[in-house]
Amino acid sequence: MPKRRLMTPGPTQVPEQALLSLARQITHHRTDEFRSLVAEVLDGLKYVFQTENDVVVLASSGTGAMEAAVVNVVPRGGKALVLESGKFAERWRKIGEAFGVEVIRYEVPWGERFEAAEVARLLHLHADVVAVYATLSETSTGVGHDIEAIGRVVAPTKSLLVVDGISSVGAMECRTDTWGIDLLVVGGQKGLMSPPGLAFLAVSPAAWRQIESIDRQAFYFDLVAYRKALAAPDTPYTPAIPLIAALAESLRLFRLEGIDRIWERTRGLARATRAGLSAMGLNLTSAFPADSLTAAYVPDGTDGKRLLDRLEARFGVKLAGGQGPLKGKIFRIAHMGMIDELDILSALAALELVLVELGHPVALGCGVAAASRVLAERADVAHQQKTVCGATGAAFQENVF
Amino acid sequence: MPKRRLMTPGPTQVPEQALLSLARQITHHRTDEFRSLVAEVLDGLKYVFQTENDVVVLASSGTGAMEAAVVNVVPRGGKALVLESGKFAERWRKIGEAFGVEVIRYEVPWGERFEAAEVARLLHLHADVVAVYATLSETSTGVGHDIEAIGRVVAPTKSLLVVDGISSVGAMECRTDTWGIDLLVVGGQKGLMSPPGLAFLAVSPAAWRQIESIDRQAFYFDLVAYRKALAAPDTPYTPAIPLIAALAESLRLFRLEGIDRIWERTRGLARATRAGLSAMGLNLTSAFPADSLTAAYVPDGTDGKRLLDRLEARFGVKLAGGQGPLKGKIFRIAHMGMIDELDILSALAALELVLVELGHPVALGCGVAAASRVLAERADVAHQQKTVCGATGAAFQENVF
Repeated sequence: MPKRRLMTPGPTQVPEQALLSLARQITHHRTDEFRSLVAEVLDGLKYVFQTENDVVVLASSGTGAMEAAVVNVVPRGGKALVLESGKFAERWRKIGEAFGVEVIRYEVPWGERFEAAEVARLLHLHADVVAVYATLSETSTGVGHDIEAIGRVVAPTKSLLVVDGISSVGAMECRTDTWGIDLLVVGGQKGLMSPPGLAFLAVSPAAWRQIESIDRQAFYFDLVAYRKALAAPDTPYTPAIPLIAALAESLRLFRLEGIDRIWERTRGLARATRAGLSAMGLNLTSAFPADSLTAAYVPDGTDGKRLLDRLEARFGVKLAGGQGPLKGKIFRIAHMGMIDELDILSALAALELVLVELGHPVALGCGVAAASRVLAERADVAHQQKTVCGATGAAFQENVF
Repeated sequence: MPKRRLMTPGPTQVPEQALLSLARQITHHRTDEFRSLVAEVLDGLKYVFQTENDVVVLASSGTGAMEAAVVNVVPRGGKALVLESGKFAERWRKIGEAFGVEVIRYEVPWGERFEAAEVARLLHLHADVVAVYATLSETSTGVGHDIEAIGRVVAPTKSLLVVDGISSVGAMECRTDTWGIDLLVVGGQKGLMSPPGLAFLAVSPAAWRQIESIDRQAFYFDLVAYRKALAAPDTPYTPAIPLIAALAESLRLFRLEGIDRIWERTRGLARATRAGLSAMGLNLTSAFPADSLTAAYVPDGTDGKRLLDRLEARFGVKLAGGQGPLKGKIFRIAHMGMIDELDILSALAALELVLVELGHPVALGCGVAAASRVLAERADVAHQQKTVCGATGAAFQENVF
C-alpha cells in the first residue's frame, strides 16, 4: 500500500491535532462550553481573514456560502457585476441567475486576469450594480486575481465587493478590511486545513445594511438569523459540532506561525513549484498564478488521466486534473496548509519519474534541483527555524543558528 | 470530572467505530474509493428509511434539507398545507413564507396530534395544495404523529406528502414507501447516530416529476443537481467527507441489529422511560408520545434550569429543556441510537436524586423500579441476546439461554 499524499487544491490535509479532536464523543451545542469554542473559532477566523467584520459559520460546502452572499445581498431583479474567468467564477453567475438577479458579465478567457480599470468602467456604466462578485484564486485555472486593485475601484462606488476566497484564504494573502472586501466567502477544507463541511462569511457593516434592507430569498442561508445568533455566539441551526472543534485546532496553528509568515511561506512554495515544473519543460496555465496552487499543462503526447493515476498508484501522490474544457489537459498541485518543502520536492520527483515512465523525456532531478534552488533562497526559513527552537526551548537556539 | 452522558434528543452519542473513522486523514472525494463509500451509505440509508426511492445527501443541518423539500416542490405562489403543532412544524411554515409559498395552516395545540380526517377535509377544500408538510416526531413537545394515517388520506389526492423525520428516523418506526411519503427529510445527528452536519432526503418518483416541472428557487439545494450526481454516485459540491465515512460506520450497525428490532427496542425504552417518570409522579407533556424521546413537565416549585444544571454537574447526564413557550417548564430525554437500558435506568436514578436534592419529594428508586419492570417484560430482549451470542460464536449460545 503506498502512503497517501493528498496534494489537491482542496480538500487538503488536516493536522493531526484536528483529526484527533474529531474522534471525541459528541457534546451538546447549546452549552457555555460550546459557545466559548465558537467564540475562539470566530476570533481565529477574523485573524486569518484579517478583518474586524462579523464572521458567520455555516454548515454547508463553500457553494452554500456563495449562495448566501448572493441571496442576502441582491434582491430578485437587482443587478450584479460578475467577474467571470473559470469554473468557480461561473458559479457566481449561475447562482445569480437561479435567483432572478440581473447579471452583468465581465468575462476574460480562462487563465487571464481582470483589469481593475475595466471593472471601474463597468461600474460607471451600471451605477445601480448592487455588488461586484470576484474570485481571489480561481482554482480551475490556478489564477490569482488582484483583489486589492479591484477593491480600490469598487470602494468609491455604491457597490459592495464580494470575494470568493474559498480555495485560498489562509494560504494566499487576503487583507479583507484593508482591501475593502464587504463579503468574503471561505471554505474550511482548503487553506484553513479543516475537513469539508463548514463555510464562512465575513460581513462588513455596509453589507449588513444592504442585507437588512432587502427582501431576502433565503431561510437556511438568511444571514440575519446568523447575525442574531452571534450575540451568544451561537448558530441558528445545529452546527457541525466536531468540524468546529477540528477547526479550532487548525486555527491555533495559524496564531502560532503568524498569518504574514504563512502567506510568505506559501508564496515561497509556489515559486519553488513553478520553478520545478518550468525546469522540467512543462508550461504553466497562467501568467498570473495563485500562491495556493499551481496548474500546468500535461505535455503533448502524454495521457493526462494516466499521469494522475500513476502518480497516485506508484507514489500515493494525489494531484487534481482539469475541469470543464481543461479536463485531461492540465494537472493542479496545491501548496497550502500542511504541505511543506519536502512534500513539494517529493511531488516534483514523482512527476519526473512518472513522466519518464510514460515516455516523456525529462532529465531526472532537474525539477527538484530548480525548486530546491528557490527554497535555498527563501527569506522566511531562518524565521521558521527560530519558531521551532522557541517551541522546544531557548537553549537550543544558539546551536541551530 | 463527571462522565459525560449525552441524552438529548439530538445531537446523540456516536458509536466508537464512527468516531475513530473521523480521525483518519482526509482523502479526495472524486475517486472510485469515495464513490463506493457513497454507494454504501445510500444503500444503508434506503434500508433505514425503508424506501426504494432515491436518497440524496446534503452538507447542511436538517433545516437545509427542509428548505430543499420546500423550494424544490412548491413554486413561488404555489399552495402548501402545513400541519403545525410545535417549534419544528412551525419551521415548515416559516420556510414556505420566506419563499413566497401560500401556506394553509392546520394548527393543533402543542402536545396534541393531527387528525387524518381533518387533513382529508382540508385537501378536499384546497384541491390545489401541492404538498402536505408533516412531522414524524415533534421534538419540541415529544409528540409522535400518525404519519401512516395521514399518508392514507394524502395518497388518493394529487398532493405530495413531505415528512420531517429529522429527529427520529432510525429510531422510531418510519415506513417511507408503505406509508406513501414522497419526500422524507432526515438529519444525521439523531436516530442515525452520526455527527451533525449531514442531512438527507428520500425522493419518490412523483416528487421528482414535480421537482423537475417547476421553477425552483434554489441553487445549493437544487435537488436536480443532486439527482444527476447520483449516477456516479457523487455529490454536486464538496461533501463533508469525514462525516460520510462516520455515517457509513453507524449504518453498518443498523444492518447488524435490523431496523425492525431497533424500532421495537426504542419502543421498549420509551415505555420504560414513561413508566419511570410516571412512577415518580411526573406528568408527561403529551398523550401521544414519540418513541424517540420523552418529554415531561418539571414539577411545580422546582426550577427547571437548576434541575438540568444539577443533572449535568453531578452526574454528567445532559438532558434537554423546553423551547419557546415550554422553556424552563419541561425536560426532554432521548432514548434512541446508542442509548440503552442501563442509560435510561441511570438517568431515572439521577433524576430521582436531583429532585430530592432540590426539595421535591420522590421515593428514591420508584422510577427505576417501574422502568425495570417494563424492561423485564421486553419481548425483544431474548432476540438481542441471541444476536450477541451469534456474534461471539454459536458455542456460547446454549449457556446463555
